[in-house]
Amino acid sequence: MNISSNPSAFAPLQNDSFIRACLRQATDHTPIWLMRQAGRYLPEYRASRAKAGSFMGLATNTDYATEVTLQPIDRYPLDAAILFSDILTVPDAMGLGLSFALGEGPKFAHAVRDEAAVAKLAVPDMDKLRYVFDAVTSIRKALNGRVPLIGFSGSPWTLACYMVEGAGSDDYRLVKTMLYSRPDLMHRILEINADAVALYLNTQIEAGAQAVMIFDSWGGVLADGAFQEFSLAYTTRVLGQLKTEHKGVRIPSIVFTKGGGLWLEEMGALKCDVLGLDWTVNLARARALVGGSKALQGNIDPNVLFAEPAQIEAEVAKALRSFGAPHTGPGTGPTHIFNLGHGISQHTPSEHVASLVQAVHEHSRRMRA
Amino acid sequence: MNISSNPSAFAPLQNDSFIRACLRQATDHTPIWLMRQAGRYLPEYRASRAKAGSFMGLATNTDYATEVTLQPIDRYPLDAAILFSDILTVPDAMGLGLSFALGEGPKFAHAVRDEAAVAKLAVPDMDKLRYVFDAVTSIRKALNGRVPLIGFSGSPWTLACYMVEGAGSDDYRLVKTMLYSRPDLMHRILEINADAVALYLNTQIEAGAQAVMIFDSWGGVLADGAFQEFSLAYTTRVLGQLKTEHKGVRIPSIVFTKGGGLWLEEMGALKCDVLGLDWTVNLARARALVGGSKALQGNIDPNVLFAEPAQIEAEVAKALRSFGAPHTGPGTGPTHIFNLGHGISQHTPSEHVASLVQAVHEHSRRMRA
Repeated sequence: MNISSNPSAFAPLQNDSFIRACLRQATDHTPIWLMRQAGRYLPEYRASRAKAGSFMGLATNTDYATEVTLQPIDRYPLDAAILFSDILTVPDAMGLGLSFALGEGPKFAHAVRDEAAVAKLAVPDMDKLRYVFDAVTSIRKALNGRVPLIGFSGSPWTLACYMVEGAGSDDYRLVKTMLYSRPDLMHRILEINADAVALYLNTQIEAGAQAVMIFDSWGGVLADGAFQEFSLAYTTRVLGQLKTEHKGVRIPSIVFTKGGGLWLEEMGALKCDVLGLDWTVNLARARALVGGSKALQGNIDPNVLFAEPAQIEAEVAKALRSFGAPHTGPGTGPTHIFNLGHGISQHTPSEHVASLVQAVHEHSRRMRA
Repeated sequence: MNISSNPSAFAPLQNDSFIRACLRQATDHTPIWLMRQAGRYLPEYRASRAKAGSFMGLATNTDYATEVTLQPIDRYPLDAAILFSDILTVPDAMGLGLSFALGEGPKFAHAVRDEAAVAKLAVPDMDKLRYVFDAVTSIRKALNGRVPLIGFSGSPWTLACYMVEGAGSDDYRLVKTMLYSRPDLMHRILEINADAVALYLNTQIEAGAQAVMIFDSWGGVLADGAFQEFSLAYTTRVLGQLKTEHKGVRIPSIVFTKGGGLWLEEMGALKCDVLGLDWTVNLARARALVGGSKALQGNIDPNVLFAEPAQIEAEVAKALRSFGAPHTGPGTGPTHIFNLGHGISQHTPSEHVASLVQAVHEHSRRMRA
C-alpha cells in the first residue's frame, strides 16, 4: 500500500540510547522501556479508554492511539515508545473478526479449525491495517524525536494459537491437536502468517517505526522439537523478509519468546538484533551464550513492582550486576536493554514505575563511571 | 502417628520395572505411568466420581480412593500406580479449609496473606491426614504386588502459592508480592511447609508407598534466583528429612518442577533419585546434563494424545530415541521412565492411552533387542 508519511520529515532523534543498545553500541546508561507501558496501571490511560469505549476503540483511532502511546513517555523518562496496538491485528485483517469481550481477553468470531478454513486464509491487504500505519506515523510525529518508536506484531505461531483456539487458552489443546494430527495445515497457516507479519512490520517501518519487535508470546508452550519446527522456523521466515534499514537508517529487530530460555542458543542464530528474555533466564548465562552477537532485553518479574521502592532498587541492581559490565567505547559489544520479563500488570502502583526507571538509569550510570 | 499397616505383610512386587528404572538399574522395557492417570478421561472414573459426589469425596474415602487408583492399572499395562489424592491435602490439614468449586479448581477458605496468618501456621497433626495413609495402605493391598505404588505431595513452594493466593492464579501476584516485599514471611511459610511435606511423605512411606514424588508444579513461574531461594532450597529441605528406605527396601524419590528445564543442572545436585521433565526439555540434553546421577521421567506433550495412534507412536519413538540407548546389564546407568510432561487431559480419548502404553513398551523392548 501507499504509505502517506515521509519519514525524512520526522524530527531527528534526541535520545538514541535504545537504538544504540539494540545495535550493541555503547550508551551512557542502560536504556529502559516496559512491555505494555501504555496500559491500565496508568490513570490517564484508564481515562482515555473510558472515552474510547473499548480497547480496539483506542487502537483503531489515530488520535487515541497517539495519546495513550505518549502517556508513559510524558510521565517517566523511558528510553523508547511502543506503538499502542494489539498483537492480533493481522488475523483480524484476514477476516477472522477480532473482539475483546469485557474482562475476557481477545476472541475471534471465525476460528480456523479445518482444511476449508485454512484454504481461505491469505496475506491480508495492508489497507485493512491502515489504522495501524496511520497511528505509527502520527505517534512518530508526536514524539518529535524524544525517543524512538517501536512497532510490533505477534509471531506466526502466536497468531496461529489464537486463530485456531479462537481465544486465549490454558492448554492449547485445539492448536496442538492440529499441530500433531495435521502438521500440513499448521505449516500452511504459519507460512501465511509469516509472510503477513513480514509485510505488516515492513509497512510499519515505512510508516515511521524505528525498531520492530516480534512477540512470540506462546512459543514457550511448545515441546522441544515442535518449537523449532513450528515457531522458530517461521520467526526465521519473517526475519528473512524484514527490512533492516529504511532510508539509510538501521532498523533493529527484537525477538521475544516468552518461556523460550531453553532455546536461547538456537535463537542466537536468528537474523535479529535483540533477544527478549523473561525472568526465568539468568542474564549472565544469556550473555555468555548469545551476548557476543545479540543485545539482550529484559528481564525482571513484573511482580517485583508490587514491592516497595527499596526492594525494587535491589532487584534492579541484581539484574544489572547479573548482566555485568556493559560495553563501553567505540565499536560493538554486549549491551542490555532493561525491561520486565512480561507485560506490566494493571495493578502496578504507578509511582513504583518511577522508582524502577530511576533505579535503572542511576545504577547503570554508576556502573559505567 | 501410629500407622496401622504392616508393610511386611504386603504381597511381593511382580513388576519392579518402575522401581528399578528409578534406581538407574536396567529393565527389559522403559516403564511408563501417566501423571493424573486416574482421572476424568476414564469413563469408570467419572462413574466413581458421580457416586462419591465430589473430588474430595473420592480422595477422603478409602474405598473410592482405592477403586479409582486401580482403574487405569486394570485398563492399561502401566508400570506404576499413583495414590489418588490432591497436592493440597497438607495445607488443608493446617486448617486452611480446602474446597473444590465445580469447574473452578481448588480454593482455600483461609488464605495466608499477613504476619498474623503466617504466625498461626504449624506442621499439622498427621492424624488429620489419616484418610490419605489409610488409602495408601488399602491401595497397596489391593494392588497385591502387581505394580508399585507412588505417594506424593506438592512442593513447599507450590503449596505456598495456593496458600497465599487462596486459589489458582495466572499471575501469582499475591504470593510474589509477599516474596518480594516480605521474604521473611515467605521463608517462614516455606520452612513449615517443608517440614510438613517431609513428615507427610515419610508417613505415606510407612503406610505402604513404594516411591514418592514431589510436585513442584509452580516452581517454573519463579524468576531465576528466586527459584533457587524459594523453591529449590525447600525441596532440598524436604529431601534431607525423607526416608530413603523402609524396612530394608529402597524408596526412590522423584522431583518434578514444571517449567524448571533451565535449572536442570542445579536440580542434578538434589538428593533424589529421579527428575521429572516437562515437554520443553530435550531428553538427550537432559541425559547429558544429569543422566549420570539421576533417572529421568517424562516428557511428551499431553496434547500428543489427541493425534491418531500412528502419530502417537511416532512421538513415542522420537522421545525414546532422544533419550537414547538405555542402560543394560548389571550396575547402574542412565534410565528413562516414560510419562507425559504434565497431567493427562480430561478430554483424552481413552483408547489413545492404550496406543501410547503399547508403543512405549514395544518400541523400548525393540531398542534393547
